[in-house]
Amino acid sequence: MAAAAANGPNKVEKRAGGIDGPTNPMVTPLLTDLYQFTMAYAYWKAGKHKERAVFDLYFRRNPFGGEYTVFAGLEECIKLIANFRFTEDEIAFIKTSLPSSCEAGFYDYLRGIDCSDVEIHAISEGYVVFPKIPLMRIEGPVAVVQLLETPLVNLINYASLVATNAARHRFVAGKSKLLLEFGLRRAQGPDGGIGASKYCYMGGFDATSNVAAGKLFGIPLRGTHSHAFVSSFMSPDEIIEKSLRSCDGSKVCEDFVSLVQTWAIMLKNCMLSCLAYEVVLVSKQLLYFLMKLNAMSIIEKGGIFGETNQSELAAFVSYALAFPKNFLALVDTYDVMRSGVPNFSAVALALNDLGYKAVGIRLDSGDLAYLSCETRKFFRAIEKEFGIRDFGKTSITASNDLNEETLDALNKQGHEVDAFGIGTHLVTCYAQPALGVVFKLVEINNQPRIKLSEDVSKVSIPCKKRCYRLYGKEGYPLVDLMTGENEPPPKAAERILCRHPFNESKRAYVVPQRVEELMKCFWPGRSDCRGYFRIAFVDYFSD
Amino acid sequence: MAAAAANGPNKVEKRAGGIDGPTNPMVTPLLTDLYQFTMAYAYWKAGKHKERAVFDLYFRRNPFGGEYTVFAGLEECIKLIANFRFTEDEIAFIKTSLPSSCEAGFYDYLRGIDCSDVEIHAISEGYVVFPKIPLMRIEGPVAVVQLLETPLVNLINYASLVATNAARHRFVAGKSKLLLEFGLRRAQGPDGGIGASKYCYMGGFDATSNVAAGKLFGIPLRGTHSHAFVSSFMSPDEIIEKSLRSCDGSKVCEDFVSLVQTWAIMLKNCMLSCLAYEVVLVSKQLLYFLMKLNAMSIIEKGGIFGETNQSELAAFVSYALAFPKNFLALVDTYDVMRSGVPNFSAVALALNDLGYKAVGIRLDSGDLAYLSCETRKFFRAIEKEFGIRDFGKTSITASNDLNEETLDALNKQGHEVDAFGIGTHLVTCYAQPALGVVFKLVEINNQPRIKLSEDVSKVSIPCKKRCYRLYGKEGYPLVDLMTGENEPPPKAAERILCRHPFNESKRAYVVPQRVEELMKCFWPGRSDCRGYFRIAFVDYFSD
Repeated sequence: MAAAAANGPNKVEKRAGGIDGPTNPMVTPLLTDLYQFTMAYAYWKAGKHKERAVFDLYFRRNPFGGEYTVFAGLEECIKLIANFRFTEDEIAFIKTSLPSSCEAGFYDYLRGIDCSDVEIHAISEGYVVFPKIPLMRIEGPVAVVQLLETPLVNLINYASLVATNAARHRFVAGKSKLLLEFGLRRAQGPDGGIGASKYCYMGGFDATSNVAAGKLFGIPLRGTHSHAFVSSFMSPDEIIEKSLRSCDGSKVCEDFVSLVQTWAIMLKNCMLSCLAYEVVLVSKQLLYFLMKLNAMSIIEKGGIFGETNQSELAAFVSYALAFPKNFLALVDTYDVMRSGVPNFSAVALALNDLGYKAVGIRLDSGDLAYLSCETRKFFRAIEKEFGIRDFGKTSITASNDLNEETLDALNKQGHEVDAFGIGTHLVTCYAQPALGVVFKLVEINNQPRIKLSEDVSKVSIPCKKRCYRLYGKEGYPLVDLMTGENEPPPKAAERILCRHPFNESKRAYVVPQRVEELMKCFWPGRSDCRGYFRIAFVDYFSD
Repeated sequence: MAAAAANGPNKVEKRAGGIDGPTNPMVTPLLTDLYQFTMAYAYWKAGKHKERAVFDLYFRRNPFGGEYTVFAGLEECIKLIANFRFTEDEIAFIKTSLPSSCEAGFYDYLRGIDCSDVEIHAISEGYVVFPKIPLMRIEGPVAVVQLLETPLVNLINYASLVATNAARHRFVAGKSKLLLEFGLRRAQGPDGGIGASKYCYMGGFDATSNVAAGKLFGIPLRGTHSHAFVSSFMSPDEIIEKSLRSCDGSKVCEDFVSLVQTWAIMLKNCMLSCLAYEVVLVSKQLLYFLMKLNAMSIIEKGGIFGETNQSELAAFVSYALAFPKNFLALVDTYDVMRSGVPNFSAVALALNDLGYKAVGIRLDSGDLAYLSCETRKFFRAIEKEFGIRDFGKTSITASNDLNEETLDALNKQGHEVDAFGIGTHLVTCYAQPALGVVFKLVEINNQPRIKLSEDVSKVSIPCKKRCYRLYGKEGYPLVDLMTGENEPPPKAAERILCRHPFNESKRAYVVPQRVEELMKCFWPGRSDCRGYFRIAFVDYFSD
């Protein structure tokens, strides 16, 4: 991830440490709240600006009413920190934003600021994390660390939220399904979209439609065509270049359109026999009458297959001529079962004659459970009737306002969808569009600090801490434990008492099989930084 | 707005037309869905890529269950269009993203693409708009216009959503209140924050905390200090530089800390008399006993004023020494009425002695209605007791998870808040985090096209259109009307029949007093573009 991310074209000038700047060049030291500058001035004026402060960055509650959160956004934080310096232009703007009474010495101080005096410990990006446990511990001169508050919270908040949302969708969809992030157009702004693509991939998605994210982060790309493509065609007559070379190059089909149209007729008969087959299950006599009296006319007159839409057929043929190896068609522009699926199948069978294997269809409206099952039956009937191996397994992608609940409902109804394209609900985190990440002072000049509140969940836990994940015998994590910086660490095979910070009755002895220190140093301050910049990308979900 | 926006530091190279690129340099022609490229290739392969297409960009339902939407994001769209060209680097990436069978000629075609053949008509940014009426009409070669679909929808969707959200907050808060956007840290990514600041200002907010947005767009900035600032202080003893020159420069107070402490004692007595005054309203007898027996000890022992927090007092004094003309204090770190407000008042009164006028307080927790009313009483009592003119009007800012409903609830309870700082719910549009903006083909080669659907609300309205807003006698708009491109326009004082497109029974005759053509040309294609780039910024709300 880190390596791929370095390929972006829109990098700010590398300022320090050999680490690229943030992916979005708009992430500068000015991307912060004004009060960070007014506080910095007040600290400076009081001579307190260099006091050593420790802040914890954490959240208070898991999002989506859930039991876990996926930590994401750290890499962008480190890129900001590594390049944190004010330009003269920025300082000039800060000067116009603060009262004119502010002394010039403060701006000289700002000119000299960087993060060489700041230390960042953090949990590795991609880890499953829990409320109250610091995701990051930021230590440094109080004025500098305050300036970092807003951008760090911003960079972690949405990243972790959307990664968690993606992981939850993956959990409901199951490991075998292909999950595609299609949210760019509905995201909250351009890098709402780019961030969503990156962090949904981290949370367990397989691909995105977002080309810019593909380029920036090396995420696999997916996409075929839209309804507009289908409705831009009138009829197969308008297709001028009709030839298609076979997959192995050995022959050329001079009129692919006719081949498709032949298949369309063959499919009619197939559907007739399918219909017959279905009815056989009821009554042979009935079948006989149906076939003699009605079925043919029902079918001919548009009952099942009579009038597939010809503009749709033209669009599918054109798309297949352009992408014979990657033919995937959106089948719901007119009527899925009466037009889209038969039209797709006619093209797919024609492609099959030339040695190509069609990829599949996409459903973007209607009852996805029912339509996917009906489509699967249709594909299986074709496999059986024409002996096309694996045609019954042709891929079915579903989109259209999907979310965790609709995925769950589809599972309960039974469906035949292989891949889900998920947009709006995924990327905007519709069910809960913000994670309450906070940034609290826990120590200054080695003195513990606390933020009190009548609401006990808002009381901060003071002191510079270490955090450990304790694992049990089967290798699963049991509990995350915070200790003071200088307390002896828990040890494997040694019994330790873990207590809830605000509820004395919640306590348990744990004998860990293994102890993992959760917060690692990702930015060591004065030391040489380059060696430390290794973001462990732990993918809990995608395989 | 347009002029202010040009000041940003992170501009991509100006590529065409003399118009700056998008504010966020990540907005490039690659910020689109992959299927726009696969379709472009299929169009190109079929020789259809230059066919003249007309697309409408619109939404189907007003957000937040409301009756209107504020259109925003157009300026960024025009900036994208004006600079729409692929770099070689981008083309190389597209090549790796499409099947290797795609012909080289297509990439030459991409190399030559720009938007000189595209025409954009749109409603002016900032206008109140309604479902189904096109916000933008995009006309041009079908392959190029398809490439624009995703970024245009992305740029309009969130911009219009958050501008509408801001307008709704303004409507509930009332015209006289100061509305501050404080959402950067909780926004969906960095330019979720920057976009929110821009479009909340457009929707009627007065200022933002976001420094980057202040610089980019000239939005007024606001901010003071956080809880961390307060808790980073221990006691007034640590304040070294205690002198403060008076506002007119005529004298220097050598020990401002002592002056504040003197006022703190004076205030205790004041509060005593306040208490007395309140109780008089109940019973003179009771007052007498209260004063004799209990009141003094209640007050002394921390009932009302006994033990204001000294670290808070130190923070306030330091902040006032740094910003004597702009003293605004966050008063809820410890206890609003027993510590924060009295501490603030002591500092404010000391500042008053030196000719400075304190700005006010900020409440960030608790019962904002109650606390604001109690604080107002306190300020009025001080005004009365010490004869400090207008002290009773000292500004009260409230923050803490505010939204439309909480503002409404505060109004109903009665409150004394002058300014609201609104973050999470505003910028993430918590109540509905996406607007369903769509982009539909309505005409190709002068042939009308329609997208059918069993859901009538999803049926697109075909044909290239014109749109008019008809105004009544009092100058208020009555109805927005769509006509075909070549139909005669409605005229003032002439009766016209307006029909609902899908409900024949919904129709009405209207005699407009004035007719406004809603969609204006913002990008005329081949003609000289510069003169046309004038985005009418219509502010319906902020005054």
